[in-house]
Amino acid sequence: MTSTMRLPVALPHAYRLVNHGPTVLVSSAHGGRRNVMAAAWSMPVEFNPPRIAVVIDKSTYTRELVLASGQLALNVPCRAQADLAYTVGSTSGRDLQAAGDDKFRRFNIGSFEGPALGLPLVDGCVAWLECRLIDEPHSQDAYDTFFAEAVSALADPVVFSGGRWSLREDNRPLHTLHHLGGGVFAVASEVVAGRNLGEDGRS
Amino acid sequence: MTSTMRLPVALPHAYRLVNHGPTVLVSSAHGGRRNVMAAAWSMPVEFNPPRIAVVIDKSTYTRELVLASGQLALNVPCRAQADLAYTVGSTSGRDLQAAGDDKFRRFNIGSFEGPALGLPLVDGCVAWLECRLIDEPHSQDAYDTFFAEAVSALADPVVFSGGRWSLREDNRPLHTLHHLGGGVFAVASEVVAGRNLGEDGRS
Repeated sequence: MTSTMRLPVALPHAYRLVNHGPTVLVSSAHGGRRNVMAAAWSMPVEFNPPRIAVVIDKSTYTRELVLASGQLALNVPCRAQADLAYTVGSTSGRDLQAAGDDKFRRFNIGSFEGPALGLPLVDGCVAWLECRLIDEPHSQDAYDTFFAEAVSALADPVVFSGGRWSLREDNRPLHTLHHLGGGVFAVASEVVAGRNLGEDGRS
Repeated sequence: MTSTMRLPVALPHAYRLVNHGPTVLVSSAHGGRRNVMAAAWSMPVEFNPPRIAVVIDKSTYTRELVLASGQLALNVPCRAQADLAYTVGSTSGRDLQAAGDDKFRRFNIGSFEGPALGLPLVDGCVAWLECRLIDEPHSQDAYDTFFAEAVSALADPVVFSGGRWSLREDNRPLHTLHHLGGGVFAVASEVVAGRNLGEDGRS
């Protein structure tokens, strides 16, 4: 079971797609070239307009495509895609490009065109954000941190609907991945609701 | 069961404490005042030296203390602390301070002094990072994003040892929280290992 459905998410809810710290796949394209890499380090920075920050190392092919195009997409992979997330995180798109190939073809990764920018979005993920880069050369240079604004948001309604994630036993393969290191991911597989503590610290 | 143990974590491993996107509690102190707030939006930005970014809204009392002191701590709460995380995320330290109180006293939150900076660290959490603020007024102003460098790291060896998280059935109350929104947290309660896909996309 991977995701096969997608519906638009209202932009004021877009931040929730990455609010809980999932590992994302950053996809990018420029001049007929395209790439996808894994990124554990991303976060929202603003609700509305929805803005995010993501760390993209100077050595990456993704960085070259993002800077050239001024665009990037965040794809949120699910448990069923742990091998895909690991693989695109441990191979170089630049090496494949030199051989006339790319990660999508090499690893048989399906994609579809993003609705706002036409970026290559990864099939089977559970959420997608197309973003326009905000020009911030200092944070890019000093911290590899790219700020961007989401201009389209999609999610699989089986696991995200009404502006909220719905993580249930019956949709386990669609739960999000959170990289612990070394290719091992925690899965956001259970849910707890916080309650207000009283003045004595008891709930 | 909450955490009662803590051991130092080597600084080159410190980023792993927040690599998987947990919600954190940001604690701070200045001039005899102290505060703690919840922050869903943080991430590492550098392995070594270990540097992080965290979003701290302009309206918060925490921001005032962090800017005045040049320091902040990230505390990683666990499943057993969902109510605490929700409560410190939905109350204002400034309001309590005006009444001569603070969140630690009001909600009976225990703390201990951080080993490097003496910051108030929250009892029962599973990991702690004391950080020195890096002076970046533009990203603070434009994106509420604070960059900081970790100078001490601690973790509960029951759930983090040898530089790695160990999320198991027998330590479930110590698993990390990941805020979905509205006081509902996903819990990083299962683990999957990614494998390399072959050229046909099969693992």
